[in-house]
Amino acid sequence: MAPKNVPITVAHGDGIGPEIMEATLHILKEAGAALDIETIEIGEKVYLAGNSAGIEPGAFDSLRRTKVFLKAPITTPQGGGYKSLNVTVRKTFGLYANVRPSVSYYPFIKTKHPTMNVVIVRENEEDVYGGIEYRQTDQVTQCLKLISRPGTERIVRYAFEYARRNNRKKVTCFTKDNIMKITDGLFHKIFTEIAARYPDIENEHWIVDIGAAKMSDTPEAFDVIVLPNLYGDVLSDVAAQIAGSVGLAGSANIGDSIAMFEAIHGSAPRRAGQNVANPSGLLLGAIMMLVHIGQTDAAERVHNAWLRTIEEGIHTYDIYVEGVSQQKVGTREFAAAVGQRIGQKPETLKAISYNADADSQSTGHSSTATAERANKETIGVDVYLDWTKGTPDELGAAMQQLNGDGLRLTAISNRGVKVYPGGHSETFCSDHWRCRFTADTDGGTTTHARIAALLARTAAAGFDFIKTENLCNFDGQPGYSHAQE
Amino acid sequence: MAPKNVPITVAHGDGIGPEIMEATLHILKEAGAALDIETIEIGEKVYLAGNSAGIEPGAFDSLRRTKVFLKAPITTPQGGGYKSLNVTVRKTFGLYANVRPSVSYYPFIKTKHPTMNVVIVRENEEDVYGGIEYRQTDQVTQCLKLISRPGTERIVRYAFEYARRNNRKKVTCFTKDNIMKITDGLFHKIFTEIAARYPDIENEHWIVDIGAAKMSDTPEAFDVIVLPNLYGDVLSDVAAQIAGSVGLAGSANIGDSIAMFEAIHGSAPRRAGQNVANPSGLLLGAIMMLVHIGQTDAAERVHNAWLRTIEEGIHTYDIYVEGVSQQKVGTREFAAAVGQRIGQKPETLKAISYNADADSQSTGHSSTATAERANKETIGVDVYLDWTKGTPDELGAAMQQLNGDGLRLTAISNRGVKVYPGGHSETFCSDHWRCRFTADTDGGTTTHARIAALLARTAAAGFDFIKTENLCNFDGQPGYSHAQE
Repeated sequence: MAPKNVPITVAHGDGIGPEIMEATLHILKEAGAALDIETIEIGEKVYLAGNSAGIEPGAFDSLRRTKVFLKAPITTPQGGGYKSLNVTVRKTFGLYANVRPSVSYYPFIKTKHPTMNVVIVRENEEDVYGGIEYRQTDQVTQCLKLISRPGTERIVRYAFEYARRNNRKKVTCFTKDNIMKITDGLFHKIFTEIAARYPDIENEHWIVDIGAAKMSDTPEAFDVIVLPNLYGDVLSDVAAQIAGSVGLAGSANIGDSIAMFEAIHGSAPRRAGQNVANPSGLLLGAIMMLVHIGQTDAAERVHNAWLRTIEEGIHTYDIYVEGVSQQKVGTREFAAAVGQRIGQKPETLKAISYNADADSQSTGHSSTATAERANKETIGVDVYLDWTKGTPDELGAAMQQLNGDGLRLTAISNRGVKVYPGGHSETFCSDHWRCRFTADTDGGTTTHARIAALLARTAAAGFDFIKTENLCNFDGQPGYSHAQE
Repeated sequence: MAPKNVPITVAHGDGIGPEIMEATLHILKEAGAALDIETIEIGEKVYLAGNSAGIEPGAFDSLRRTKVFLKAPITTPQGGGYKSLNVTVRKTFGLYANVRPSVSYYPFIKTKHPTMNVVIVRENEEDVYGGIEYRQTDQVTQCLKLISRPGTERIVRYAFEYARRNNRKKVTCFTKDNIMKITDGLFHKIFTEIAARYPDIENEHWIVDIGAAKMSDTPEAFDVIVLPNLYGDVLSDVAAQIAGSVGLAGSANIGDSIAMFEAIHGSAPRRAGQNVANPSGLLLGAIMMLVHIGQTDAAERVHNAWLRTIEEGIHTYDIYVEGVSQQKVGTREFAAAVGQRIGQKPETLKAISYNADADSQSTGHSSTATAERANKETIGVDVYLDWTKGTPDELGAAMQQLNGDGLRLTAISNRGVKVYPGGHSETFCSDHWRCRFTADTDGGTTTHARIAALLARTAAAGFDFIKTENLCNFDGQPGYSHAQE
């Protein structure tokens, strides 16, 4: 029985976009993908018509209707005021997962890592990418790194669901939780919790520095890697580069409401209209889309026909190498060659199979069990000061005068190093001080009104407090780190 | 004229430590290094004698006296309560720079990157490594990333001074300042300021994801790379690994008061006492020490003799490869071979030269010009809430009731995305909300007393405020980011 047509939204983009989209859609049709296509306009023309995001409000209606977006590369005009279309779509629809397979196709494409086949699943919304930053003193600037339980649960669950649907055997997690015990510790903890629900898939955790070194040298040791936003940003670029296939890589951005599929390369305006561009990156993005909407048979047919074309040496100019390639072809001829090979499998490269039984479009959010609310007790506050008037001991003596109402100064630190009481004379102190006040009695709690009153005393004493952070216990466990001594 | 003896502190460490230190000191002596050695005890015995940091208070006196520490690897006993000796020394003495050369010795040592010769200069105290973390709500955890002007000035200046002293031609900076405009933006800005004072040295900046990809694939494109702590942590491990020379790498940790030199590998207890260990990592650390104390002639003699020994195929077991190596030797025999080659230069590998005229022991701190104090105005405050009771619009309506005293609610965001006024219905909201209050009048300022009063009203209205961040202008420039829409 033929599958029911699935509506998708398609944008042909700028530069080489229209050509590679045409090639991609030709191949999808040849493979029997069952799609109802809605076309929208995005990119350069829309920007220049005065829309700062490069996408018209009406186009959002199509995305909300189809929930699936196949997007060609676009050109963002030079000059100020234009916002990234991808950031706009990601923020608007909460696209929390960025999925980037990096595969080497040795001996048909040059690479130092012949057996590499890694998929990076990057958390896409949190970490330092909220862009929440403050300059606080003359000397010190701050960025907030946020890691949340629901944000982490859905990215980790997505990674395991992806592994299952794509017949992957292992999911690896990278964090730096030996240093960041609370934030990266939460990511690692949730990884362990969720991994336990997927006994058919191997799991492991590496500290990110050692893991990154291993991946850069021996990428064949990894299969799917799930990681927080910043590590994922850096390592997905490393993986694509060392695979030797930046021009051949597709990418998915997954949200609860919609998902977007594209090539990782740009619109290459100088190559536009010449029938030379390689449509493979967009095609591999489209294959991820077919798997996402449950059309795994069509995905398999396209993927294997493409692999067969690559290994027969039918190559566009960008991957053509004398002695390795057999025939240099244009965009349309490449698409025709892949279309003619629908139903064939590669002979040297490994044929692809997708798992039709896996839960298609499972995004991991709605069905994730979030823990019950913990019992939260506020037991103190860190008051940060901009201060340049003396030594740690002098500051300690002055701040102790502000004790009262059950709150007492217990320590001062500077850039994470404890300097009062009992610091080291060699410690370099910036103008950015943290004064920790805790409830007088062991195990006691304080109130928000008392914290506000402490700040009022701090202001009255003439101190420039620049920020506060409450100290809380959750179910009796401290929710704050101690200064390093 | 023979140089005046320089006092240094030496620790022989655990496992293979004593053997490789003996080998290293033998070679330094043969090369005519002018050293007065004080020996201290650190490591396993000291830990087990009840000292939680693995170093006795008396040993610190030796470090304070000599200011130069050549350290063999140590063994930290298993089990709780033992603190990292390196972290203790780094925190105590403010060792702000970690310097790690990664070099390939092709064709004598196996590597995928035959012409690699990169030095990573990693900032070692700031960024997310202050370990300043908070769990703030049921769902959300936070780590502070701090980047300071003096911390950045001294690491960048150190990188340029290092380049000059070691005859390096280019210093590259990696940041993510397209996203973190305030923190990474400060690092990049200071890099540009300081680079201008070194017209003899080329400089460039890369966004860290693209730079990391380039370095992993084409490390020969880089010379010295200076970068914030986290990027440096990850990329120094990547560089060491892909050079194929983790066992051959030395490292320096530089502070204003003292500097520490070591191998990057561990104490390998299973190899101890067998005269098999490779002393090269520690020896290369010792060469960095000789350059640091201005004995560049001795450093050159040792370095070139070592290169000559490597290319003659006189190899310890760990780098011995049939067909490439000529002779498998033990630790003592290797040291003797290097010692016999003092005065010789390599023939295939490039000979080393150090710049004797450069300012030795310049650490870049005291002579760094810090900008004058800016004119700082506090113009509002971000009040963060733990809140689960409804929609962004409901929260907005409730928080507006707290306006007063010249402060007015202007926006609410969740995980960096603006949700009030005028958010998108698809935005997933955690229990972690930022409410931005700013001074009523355009360009107006507020006071610390008014911020404390706003918090008192917030407490009285029953809200769980979890943190605050003041909004300040510095010389009229906003010191805070805006939420992404």
